[in-house]
Amino acid sequence: MALKKKPVTGMKDILPAEMEIRDYVLNIIKDTYRQYGFSSIETPCVEHIENLTSKQGGDNEKLIFKILKRGEKLNLETAETEADLVDGGLRYDLTLPLSRYYSNNAASLPSPFKALQVGSVWRADRPQKGRFRQFVQCDIDILGDATSLAEIEEILALTTALKRICPDKAYTVRVNDRAILKGMADYSGFPENETDQVFIILDKMDKIGLDGVKEELLAEGYTAESVEKYTDLLGKVKNTAEGVRELGRILEGVMDPAKAENLAMIMDTVKEVADIDFGLEFDPTLVRGMGYYTGTIFEVSMEGFGGSVAGGGRYDKLIGKFTGTDTPACGFSIGFERIITILMDSGFKVPASSGKKAYLYEKGISGAALADILKKAQAERASGVRVAVAQMNKNKKFQKEQLQKEGYQEFVEFYRDSLK
Amino acid sequence: MALKKKPVTGMKDILPAEMEIRDYVLNIIKDTYRQYGFSSIETPCVEHIENLTSKQGGDNEKLIFKILKRGEKLNLETAETEADLVDGGLRYDLTLPLSRYYSNNAASLPSPFKALQVGSVWRADRPQKGRFRQFVQCDIDILGDATSLAEIEEILALTTALKRICPDKAYTVRVNDRAILKGMADYSGFPENETDQVFIILDKMDKIGLDGVKEELLAEGYTAESVEKYTDLLGKVKNTAEGVRELGRILEGVMDPAKAENLAMIMDTVKEVADIDFGLEFDPTLVRGMGYYTGTIFEVSMEGFGGSVAGGGRYDKLIGKFTGTDTPACGFSIGFERIITILMDSGFKVPASSGKKAYLYEKGISGAALADILKKAQAERASGVRVAVAQMNKNKKFQKEQLQKEGYQEFVEFYRDSLK
Repeated sequence: MALKKKPVTGMKDILPAEMEIRDYVLNIIKDTYRQYGFSSIETPCVEHIENLTSKQGGDNEKLIFKILKRGEKLNLETAETEADLVDGGLRYDLTLPLSRYYSNNAASLPSPFKALQVGSVWRADRPQKGRFRQFVQCDIDILGDATSLAEIEEILALTTALKRICPDKAYTVRVNDRAILKGMADYSGFPENETDQVFIILDKMDKIGLDGVKEELLAEGYTAESVEKYTDLLGKVKNTAEGVRELGRILEGVMDPAKAENLAMIMDTVKEVADIDFGLEFDPTLVRGMGYYTGTIFEVSMEGFGGSVAGGGRYDKLIGKFTGTDTPACGFSIGFERIITILMDSGFKVPASSGKKAYLYEKGISGAALADILKKAQAERASGVRVAVAQMNKNKKFQKEQLQKEGYQEFVEFYRDSLK
Repeated sequence: MALKKKPVTGMKDILPAEMEIRDYVLNIIKDTYRQYGFSSIETPCVEHIENLTSKQGGDNEKLIFKILKRGEKLNLETAETEADLVDGGLRYDLTLPLSRYYSNNAASLPSPFKALQVGSVWRADRPQKGRFRQFVQCDIDILGDATSLAEIEEILALTTALKRICPDKAYTVRVNDRAILKGMADYSGFPENETDQVFIILDKMDKIGLDGVKEELLAEGYTAESVEKYTDLLGKVKNTAEGVRELGRILEGVMDPAKAENLAMIMDTVKEVADIDFGLEFDPTLVRGMGYYTGTIFEVSMEGFGGSVAGGGRYDKLIGKFTGTDTPACGFSIGFERIITILMDSGFKVPASSGKKAYLYEKGISGAALADILKKAQAERASGVRVAVAQMNKNKKFQKEQLQKEGYQEFVEFYRDSLK
């Protein structure tokens, strides 16, 4: 039986042209983040199934690729449920493994620790255009810093990286805080233990609009009074730091005013320090799905493209699930694949860093004559030129066209007669 | 229940100090290979289980991490064997996925195609010091080139990369050809359909020596005459290109002499062209385990370290398993983890590429004063310095020591009083 040629469902083979863009963008991201003092780390792609199914990952926990036990541990006869069969799974994000990593290695790491992680994650989502089951995330996280310096530095680092990748595109960072979300729901009179349900509906805002949210809340059985009060509030809040402070005053009584002041201060300081141009807005409808967020949350969108290109927030309780002691933590993740898609769709070309030459030699050249050609190639390579050497194909024209697609612009041809 | 802090068995968390070396070495490898005209590609980490268990991977097929089917496809009640439960697995090397990739994408790629792949692979091996269940491989492969230019260029590229990584270490490339292995066995009179068994024993040479090989062959029931003739031959062959030609003359009658001449020519040309110093030896006992090799095979060892740091060979039949038409192919894989271990054990330090400064500010500094500190950091970052900003911990001395371990040599301290 012939083997299967296509990649597994929902995952993709990456061709050289795309890889060039990916490598280029990754280098910019890593360089920028290192300038901000982040250190590279790595965690295994495989994670304990107990950690992956600990209710920290929201809906992503339904999408885990699970790994079968091996050897004696696998007992098909006595297995009754899926849980009896598996002991690991592919990570669905980089944040949960990072929290485990920090719990395991905190003694060897500075405090606060600024981590930079680049790696693949897996989600068995329904395959659709531009969404894959294996994709790369680029995360920065600051662990052990309870102050809003973490948020400020991460927003600065991320926006600097984005601007270096796409200098021509305008983008906007939207921020909110889980405490403010909670405060608005409490203020509107929703039952206290049902606010998560309210936020799930609110999270659909970008798809169904404010009227849609209103409808769904009513359909869910919440009182018209609460729904009215809530949507009124959402509609009238200004998206500036001043707007956040105003909202803080409105919510006095149900929320600690320091929460609003903290977010407003983050916005003020980022704007004051940033040496590049981007939008920074308070968005009271921003929810973000992950179960582990506890405070500030952010999302970045790019002008002309739906959805977000980056997102993150504070998750002060996650590391405590491993260690028993809470450790403040705040992270920002770049939607790497989204950015690559945007660049590919807009015909982006990586700036050439070095010359590319192809040496083509006639069939039959070998021994000392071939060695001479290769020596010439070695010398050019040593001087920084990228040199591909190949025997001429019968269809030389097609061969050259293919090489041109790979970026080879200069061709040097060698024939038997001329080498004598 | 608390979550699990340790990584899954046999896999590891990589700390910043090791990551720095890994990133440095990977950059050298990629840069060098690109100079030789190799283009980056990527395949998914998950591969069809049918492809992974197609008898191409030798013993590695016993070590696959298998992935459970999902949704409706998973039927625990009716499942009788492991095969009913899984549809994918983690790749155990990069060569099999590359062959699938080439079969799937050949029409969009130049011919010959020079691929550069860096990625993790997984093997559920018994955990032991320095051997992990997830590890990185760095491969180059030339697909569609039947000439020995492929071998020559790959040996040149690989040795150049190794020399750039470890300029002080001597290393030796050992070469052989599956046809010569076969020729020697045939010449010695082993039964024709049992030569694979002979090679499995021969492959233990580095562990049990020539006498051990002799003993095992006899114990396996081969005639004393064959074993004597075989070990005599192995003992007397010279390790030079001239030795290969001599062996070719001895094997005339059981092997096409062009096979020996081809290998000798590869050795001559590499030596003639190489602009760096390394050993290049014919090793008639070199086997390499993978089922898919069909011709030349190579392995690289480093002075003072057991085992190999790179290996590869020609596999002209593997792509045909996907397409039905054989495509010549030859590849070289760097044992990346082995090299990292050697560098770490020998106290290797990455040459500093840019300054690293830590700004430490007294607790209580915020608002405009913090913004001023951050602006200063922004300006230094823009000029290429890596700047970490952090609030001073109570134990400032310990904080600085930790930062020094991360490579921060310069500290700038900010106090409330002095900022007024």
